[in-house]
Amino acid sequence: MPFTLPENGKRRVVIVGAGFAGLGLAKDLADVPGIQVVLLDRHNYHTFQPLLYQVATAGLQPDSIAYPLRRIFRGRANVHVRLAQVHSVDATARLLHTDQGPLPYHDLVIATGSRPRFFGAFASIANQLMTLKTLPGALDLRSMINQQFEKALESPDLEWRMKCLSVGIVGGGPTGVELAGALAEMRRFVLPKDYPDMDFSLMHIVLYEAAPSLLGSMSAKASEKARVYLAELGVDLRLGVPVKQYEQGFLIGADGSTLHTDTVIWTAGVEGAPIDGLVPEIFGPGNRIQVDAHHQVLGMEHVYALGDVALMRTERFPNGHPMLAPVAQQQAQNLAANLIRSMKQGSPKAFRYTDKGSMATIGRNKAVVDLPGFQMQGALAWFIWMFVHVYSLIGFKNRLVALLDWSFSYFTYDRSLSLIIRPFRKPEATASK
Amino acid sequence: MPFTLPENGKRRVVIVGAGFAGLGLAKDLADVPGIQVVLLDRHNYHTFQPLLYQVATAGLQPDSIAYPLRRIFRGRANVHVRLAQVHSVDATARLLHTDQGPLPYHDLVIATGSRPRFFGAFASIANQLMTLKTLPGALDLRSMINQQFEKALESPDLEWRMKCLSVGIVGGGPTGVELAGALAEMRRFVLPKDYPDMDFSLMHIVLYEAAPSLLGSMSAKASEKARVYLAELGVDLRLGVPVKQYEQGFLIGADGSTLHTDTVIWTAGVEGAPIDGLVPEIFGPGNRIQVDAHHQVLGMEHVYALGDVALMRTERFPNGHPMLAPVAQQQAQNLAANLIRSMKQGSPKAFRYTDKGSMATIGRNKAVVDLPGFQMQGALAWFIWMFVHVYSLIGFKNRLVALLDWSFSYFTYDRSLSLIIRPFRKPEATASK
Repeated sequence: MPFTLPENGKRRVVIVGAGFAGLGLAKDLADVPGIQVVLLDRHNYHTFQPLLYQVATAGLQPDSIAYPLRRIFRGRANVHVRLAQVHSVDATARLLHTDQGPLPYHDLVIATGSRPRFFGAFASIANQLMTLKTLPGALDLRSMINQQFEKALESPDLEWRMKCLSVGIVGGGPTGVELAGALAEMRRFVLPKDYPDMDFSLMHIVLYEAAPSLLGSMSAKASEKARVYLAELGVDLRLGVPVKQYEQGFLIGADGSTLHTDTVIWTAGVEGAPIDGLVPEIFGPGNRIQVDAHHQVLGMEHVYALGDVALMRTERFPNGHPMLAPVAQQQAQNLAANLIRSMKQGSPKAFRYTDKGSMATIGRNKAVVDLPGFQMQGALAWFIWMFVHVYSLIGFKNRLVALLDWSFSYFTYDRSLSLIIRPFRKPEATASK
Repeated sequence: MPFTLPENGKRRVVIVGAGFAGLGLAKDLADVPGIQVVLLDRHNYHTFQPLLYQVATAGLQPDSIAYPLRRIFRGRANVHVRLAQVHSVDATARLLHTDQGPLPYHDLVIATGSRPRFFGAFASIANQLMTLKTLPGALDLRSMINQQFEKALESPDLEWRMKCLSVGIVGGGPTGVELAGALAEMRRFVLPKDYPDMDFSLMHIVLYEAAPSLLGSMSAKASEKARVYLAELGVDLRLGVPVKQYEQGFLIGADGSTLHTDTVIWTAGVEGAPIDGLVPEIFGPGNRIQVDAHHQVLGMEHVYALGDVALMRTERFPNGHPMLAPVAQQQAQNLAANLIRSMKQGSPKAFRYTDKGSMATIGRNKAVVDLPGFQMQGALAWFIWMFVHVYSLIGFKNRLVALLDWSFSYFTYDRSLSLIIRPFRKPEATASK
């Protein structure tokens, strides 16, 4: 990394991670005189994570939900984008060690997000489970699902076909619910047309949730309506049923129920995904980095953490803020404002989260929306969900293409993006202990 | 493959390969009473190969130039699509052996197309060269090119940067010319905006062609104009210069000239890519299967070959027909008509190729079009090229999305699809003999 500190006396803010937090911060600081931003990520694009399940279920093209970072910062000469891997932080010397050499900073912001968390018997077989946190992961899932349909045709044996077609989803949060809904709609409207030789009543879509209800973070009304929608779509709901293990193709619930399937999708929780080289003392529960109300990492001056990877405890959120995009975005805004204030010798403001509501979509005309003091379900909720998400996609062209894809799906009951561009090869199962 | 011969007395035509020839034939036979079609391919989609270079250079999304086979044959109950690998043919028993078991047929059609052909010192280092024959290959090239730009930033050393940025293209046929033009336009209009820290005069785009002119199969006028266009765009043309070797990062021409580069793109020729398990006697030059004027493979009754993999010699084409999409499409039409005739005891017609012209695009407003008795170059040719290609893309939505992508590129001078979704990892160079 051929980067000495700026000679013009600018303050360098190094941001690691270009998710909602890191990208938001970089944008807010991009045109601030006196600040230079260096934005590091392992990908050259920002991923719109809430729609990864649409890529996995052939509803949206990958390019519609990802946007090259360099495009976002075109003409913003103060922002330097680099693909780099972080090795460690030297907070005393204010130096970030990377695979491209040391990078000095004035302020360091860790915004590296979260990754799936596996527990119990599943920790040792994580490579047998599909997840949905990255674009390559979503494309793997899309390939896997479509390969399984082809594989089902290889034998007329009913047990074989059932195992190939069926899908087990672990976790009834937004990702699990949206994925189950999308798959159930494919089963009803798309697959029988594409596979006339196949009986899709053999395809079981089973959703396991350890808690007694879905969408735990949303209202009781939303949770109940999501249950009704999924039941209507024929999703087999196992509420209050934690999964116990997945062995020899059988997913086993705590109630003893089993599902014979090659495809287990894990959406049952995430944990912080910090950079390497941090001391263990700064971590709180869930592998998250403890920060104060000004986003500063415990005991590390000029080092901040934002978003999913940050554990900020307040009276309102004694266990830390929820790991949601709006939290990340608002934290980025607050830190940006604080950094700008500090350049004028102002004092930083404590973060305060404003809950603007949440939503999830289960299928065509089936969505649930919780707004502060107001809840809505059904077709109008679905249109609101659609509008918000199309609007949030970065880039005018992306919005148009996404809208085009969705309009086609809507009017034709179709999902056409089912290419197996790179066949997914599941790693060999290793003997479990 | 759970497939015995149809019990209803239908004639089964098994087609291997869903390129222009195989797909065309399957479409022509899809609604013929008395015929059952089984279409085998290793991919679940048809690739529009002429536009792969657009995917590689970030101008089109992969989904715009590929279309799921099952969608194409929706509602055509006589067509069965399967992903399978062929092991061998038993022409006496009329049996195709596949990785999913034996498949009996009445007629077998081999339409497996072509693959890159490497010669001289390049045969043993094929894995060091980029090619452009499949969608994963095009995405690898897109990743490789974009990774190289990022890599160039890792060091301020000029030699390093030049090596990372430069591209050597071997072969001045349509693919080489179109790729060189697209890269040169990126260098001029897109890259300086995306990489403000980088001096793109360091990026050399060098096109090697052993013959003294480009686009050998087109008119002298088209060939000369292509040369002028590429020269205007700053492509370094080495005409009449075969390449000798690529060693330790140096591509060496027969004239002793060298190019220091990580990226060598091989478009210098193709050869037949037949199925496994055929006897060597049936092959002619270029690894192509010899067929008679009725597409029948030499000495193999009820076995046919079409398109690039077929070598049909006639008075007009003593070395076989050109390996072009229109030849494949017309051969498919002729074979379909012959098969239908044979069911009515009619006699087959010999194939006769109608040359409808050819075209290539070098850049915005820069294309060359040869029509029978008429040649055209420039902006109008470019619009014709655009119209023909958008029109040829299968599927209404694909056409819209492609048109959208191109319109944006046209009006904004931009190519925005530069995601490195899967980093390309070049295999280790092995010691050359």
